[in-house]
Amino acid sequence: MPASASSIPDTVLVSADALHALAVRVLLRLGLSQAHAEAMARTIVAGQRDDCQSHGVYRLLTCAQTVRSGKVELQAEPVVAPTRGAVVRVDARRGFSPLAFERGLPALVEAARTQGLAALAIHQCFHFSALWPEIEALTAHGLAALALTPSHAWVAPAGGHRPVFGTNPIAFGWPRPGPYPFVFDFATSAIARGDLELHRRAGTPLPAGCGVDAQGRPSTDPLAVAQGAMLAFGGHKGSALAAMVELMAGALIGDWTSQESLEFDAGAQAAPCHGELVLAFDPARLAGGDPAAGQQSAERLFQAITDQGARLPSQRRYAARERSLQRGIAVPRALYEEIEALGG
Amino acid sequence: MPASASSIPDTVLVSADALHALAVRVLLRLGLSQAHAEAMARTIVAGQRDDCQSHGVYRLLTCAQTVRSGKVELQAEPVVAPTRGAVVRVDARRGFSPLAFERGLPALVEAARTQGLAALAIHQCFHFSALWPEIEALTAHGLAALALTPSHAWVAPAGGHRPVFGTNPIAFGWPRPGPYPFVFDFATSAIARGDLELHRRAGTPLPAGCGVDAQGRPSTDPLAVAQGAMLAFGGHKGSALAAMVELMAGALIGDWTSQESLEFDAGAQAAPCHGELVLAFDPARLAGGDPAAGQQSAERLFQAITDQGARLPSQRRYAARERSLQRGIAVPRALYEEIEALGG
Repeated sequence: MPASASSIPDTVLVSADALHALAVRVLLRLGLSQAHAEAMARTIVAGQRDDCQSHGVYRLLTCAQTVRSGKVELQAEPVVAPTRGAVVRVDARRGFSPLAFERGLPALVEAARTQGLAALAIHQCFHFSALWPEIEALTAHGLAALALTPSHAWVAPAGGHRPVFGTNPIAFGWPRPGPYPFVFDFATSAIARGDLELHRRAGTPLPAGCGVDAQGRPSTDPLAVAQGAMLAFGGHKGSALAAMVELMAGALIGDWTSQESLEFDAGAQAAPCHGELVLAFDPARLAGGDPAAGQQSAERLFQAITDQGARLPSQRRYAARERSLQRGIAVPRALYEEIEALGG
Repeated sequence: MPASASSIPDTVLVSADALHALAVRVLLRLGLSQAHAEAMARTIVAGQRDDCQSHGVYRLLTCAQTVRSGKVELQAEPVVAPTRGAVVRVDARRGFSPLAFERGLPALVEAARTQGLAALAIHQCFHFSALWPEIEALTAHGLAALALTPSHAWVAPAGGHRPVFGTNPIAFGWPRPGPYPFVFDFATSAIARGDLELHRRAGTPLPAGCGVDAQGRPSTDPLAVAQGAMLAFGGHKGSALAAMVELMAGALIGDWTSQESLEFDAGAQAAPCHGELVLAFDPARLAGGDPAAGQQSAERLFQAITDQGARLPSQRRYAARERSLQRGIAVPRALYEEIEALGG
């Protein structure tokens, strides 16, 4: 048992290596292949390290549920097709997503460098992680990146009341000098599905504007919204973006929309199975003349934001990462013990 | 003088050809080259036809103001660089944007077909039109498209109160069977700059949440907001998207951010001068197996939206287009007479 964080009661502090080893142990016991377990553990440890609790070791529990559904292929070896033009295609073969992304990453980086921009289309994956770890994997190569995925049809279009869209995250990254790129990663729904679940379990009302009941009436009751529909952020604009995610990361790449993913789930409550689109852009190729000038413009933009006391996206996450690097990764004690028990 | 629209008082009905000829005449008198006048007239007539008043013949008046500023090159011949990989680059040489887009379009379509996706980077243009005409030019080729531009720094970041971002539109299109693609085109600001100007002239208050005064206090006074800052739509998410537009259509392609464009303007109140990024995606290349399946998924998505009484974006615009095609294009009489006088 790792040391307690004396300042945070009921929390244990774990090194990244120890947490990775624990996550791998749990995932192997669930029946995942070594390659899948390693790739998934990397995203889980990154999430916990950055204090993204819903994408941290808690994911091992939802992962266990998806495994029990019997729909995910635990040993699926992703197939990377030969790059054609600026398109890299990876068939995840109904396995979890992190390994498929890792396998496609080198070809995506190379295609972006060669062509100026490139697309990675991942097919038929059980999406598992937040999108920001994938974005950071690309900014680490000096590339800008945009990633989109559908999920399960839970969100009504603006002006409607029946679910059509998933929570459909959009994530973007821009490489900066130093370890911390400009990164955002948000659901196009007004509230994340995980937060809706937390409200449901806690019996607390949702913020206004997050959903409607089955009759289409605005509601803050998490149970009523789960039976009705969530809403997109930002009214008709957020709803339009949610549709774009369905079209780009679904129809365009020939994979499922959130409706089709939910039909495949058929009540199993597994993680959504669908595609993902990741675009990578090489500033050195797109800037034309002097990419350093573009980098300077970007830094000036960031400074104009932070100089007036506003925050850059991910600033809170990076602060958590700093703390984790200094003192170890904090895990709620009860959760840690539950995960340890899973690891045998 | 064309016929009155008896059902709409103070409106004249003009054929597309006659309105095009009038717009060309006005633009030539302003000193534009024939090629610029023709390309600009096409976007102006399209805007008026679709009842987008702020992007219709009214633009001829703001265009005249930009010309008077002396900053725009009226005869600039855009230079299309040889396509490199998936990147097409057009130097607008400080001319208006529509001609630069038209000149780059064939190479963009070809690169998207060849590579699966491609980028058109337009440099140093005075942006003139809405983005949807450009999006529709790509969906007409069976391509999906995404377009972004900065503007002038008028919008504060979430949590801040000083302008950093432009109104930074995002436009997207998906090709559909028939004449009407799925298209959206919206400002990432909570209100369009043109609408702010209309409120200022009319002395009417803005909707809540659109801006802050120079002290950073929420305000609905259009004058106070013009002196303070507009806000992004959708809180921190819209603000993050506005930053993405600056980075993608500014820093990434080596062109100006909205701050830099405003500095170049130096109080002249001309149209913003900056770059534009247009991405095109070929579903036939990206879908892998059967692109028809993706097209069907998309149509099923649209039907799930419209079946519940919700609207697709651009539906109102397409209805206006139908009316214009049937009875002619409606122009407010006073505006029409003002434009006719400009045409000499």
